[in-house]
Amino acid sequence: MKLRSGILFSFVLVLLLHTPMALAADPLPSWNDTATKKVIVEFVQAVTDKNSKDYVPPAERVTTFDNDGTLWTEKPVYTHVFALLDRVKDQMSSDSTLKERQPYKAIATKDKVYFAGLFENRALDTLADELVALPFGGMTSRQYADWNQDWLKGWKHPKFGVGVQGLIYQPMVELIRYLEANGFQVFIFTADEGAFLRLVSQELYGLAPERVHGSRVRADYIAEGDKAGLIRAYRVEYVNNWAAKPRLIEQVIGVRPILAAGNSNGDEHMLQYVALQERRSLPLLVHHTDGDREYAYDSHTDKVIPRAAKEGWTVIDMKSDWKQIFFR
Amino acid sequence: MKLRSGILFSFVLVLLLHTPMALAADPLPSWNDTATKKVIVEFVQAVTDKNSKDYVPPAERVTTFDNDGTLWTEKPVYTHVFALLDRVKDQMSSDSTLKERQPYKAIATKDKVYFAGLFENRALDTLADELVALPFGGMTSRQYADWNQDWLKGWKHPKFGVGVQGLIYQPMVELIRYLEANGFQVFIFTADEGAFLRLVSQELYGLAPERVHGSRVRADYIAEGDKAGLIRAYRVEYVNNWAAKPRLIEQVIGVRPILAAGNSNGDEHMLQYVALQERRSLPLLVHHTDGDREYAYDSHTDKVIPRAAKEGWTVIDMKSDWKQIFFR
Repeated sequence: MKLRSGILFSFVLVLLLHTPMALAADPLPSWNDTATKKVIVEFVQAVTDKNSKDYVPPAERVTTFDNDGTLWTEKPVYTHVFALLDRVKDQMSSDSTLKERQPYKAIATKDKVYFAGLFENRALDTLADELVALPFGGMTSRQYADWNQDWLKGWKHPKFGVGVQGLIYQPMVELIRYLEANGFQVFIFTADEGAFLRLVSQELYGLAPERVHGSRVRADYIAEGDKAGLIRAYRVEYVNNWAAKPRLIEQVIGVRPILAAGNSNGDEHMLQYVALQERRSLPLLVHHTDGDREYAYDSHTDKVIPRAAKEGWTVIDMKSDWKQIFFR
Repeated sequence: MKLRSGILFSFVLVLLLHTPMALAADPLPSWNDTATKKVIVEFVQAVTDKNSKDYVPPAERVTTFDNDGTLWTEKPVYTHVFALLDRVKDQMSSDSTLKERQPYKAIATKDKVYFAGLFENRALDTLADELVALPFGGMTSRQYADWNQDWLKGWKHPKFGVGVQGLIYQPMVELIRYLEANGFQVFIFTADEGAFLRLVSQELYGLAPERVHGSRVRADYIAEGDKAGLIRAYRVEYVNNWAAKPRLIEQVIGVRPILAAGNSNGDEHMLQYVALQERRSLPLLVHHTDGDREYAYDSHTDKVIPRAAKEGWTVIDMKSDWKQIFFR
């Protein structure tokens, strides 16, 4: 059964990657015919129609998507967190002395107070360094990729029992293809580490590594003998969340997006940056309302839900707007 | 005369941008038939031939070019420095009190000792902040672009009497087009501020802003009323030179280049990063040997010239390898 659904997934993905959506009857078949779908299609038509007052040339049709909770399931915790914890367990099983020091000790004993303390004391840099950088510190880029690719092959989501291929939202992948077919450029800006998502972004979304930008662990350039490369340091050098998202968008792309999609407070500034500009734009907020097919929650949305109303963002209601959620 | 050469330049550039070089008889017409040209053509053939042991799939055909001294003239000083000095003069003419404080005072009185002092004391962060960030501090991205685009329209090179369009190397633009026609992706990694070069990269090289990465001035995200955007701060946050080049390449592209071109010590690590890898690669070092047609010099090359010999980089000898240097 797993093999069959894997083949089906690959087949659907190949179709999605190669079907010229702009010409198809319905470019967004997994979307119900609600107001949301209409807003998206009308926006795309308006900015691509040379006779429209809202016309935007292809070079400026830049779009930016969050990932966790926007393109794939982020519950019960980010997929990346499962990988980090498994890596930490790996390290402890090969070096038992690690259990004696932090953060390994807290992880081994499930001591949540230790991490809550760092969080409450706003020692967020330390928290990020210990959880994201330390487990893979000292590895080359290749070693990091190898460990995580192996991990991704074996991991299954605790509720759905599928790998990451089964956690991405079919309607959002259709949206990406629809935008690309209409001359848009699609980028991902995630709060997660970019290097992690890049390992699967081509397979899952048809997006090359250069289209994926997230939080960054410092890497140092080392040359020794006839070998040179980058070694991961023990420090997170950029946390790509909140106002850091528009900042990184400017540094990486240099063109202001006209469409962005997010789902939680970390996306507030990116969505506002898209909303408050002179050109016509489309900020999209994915709202998790479907406890039966995915999850229903409002954690980390207290800033974005009111702002969506105030600034006229389009809210995607998963339960009513999406006919199909996953590729299954 | 100027109008005519401008039209000629545009015409040649349009031709270069739209001619499928791979099919043309000679993809590099401004290059003499020397060993250098042969090395380049053989490299491109080897990595694009599916039957070759050196075959590299298109997604990994990443290339990175330095700009100053590699794609355009960097003498007598970087073009960007002329812009910065003119901006400082602008500021002083509208606010005479600026002359009383540094670095304006030193610039007004041509006090080189002040800057040499910062340099010798290794106060390089301060030096960068004062010269690169301060003159445009507080501007929006749009204001920065407007001022510099105006400046670029009026500026003429002191020796050649032409704008930046007349300072780019025709053989290197041909190389960029040749690589693109063969499925390579071309990026620029400059020590100069990326935001400056991005203003002309599409016109000069056919490269979109997202393909151009350089030193970065911090920008802060500000939202006020119904407006939001990025405001330039007074701090350089990334100096893209030496080992910082491969570090930024990894962060921005996430794929190791197989070809890079540079010309001075600032490119040493980027070129070595390309040279010392398992796949076939081509590090190119532009050597300024033509005092008649451009400049002949060996400043800031004491590290790269020996390393080129040691690691087998290909040295481009401007005088003997290039039939034509500029678009004139």
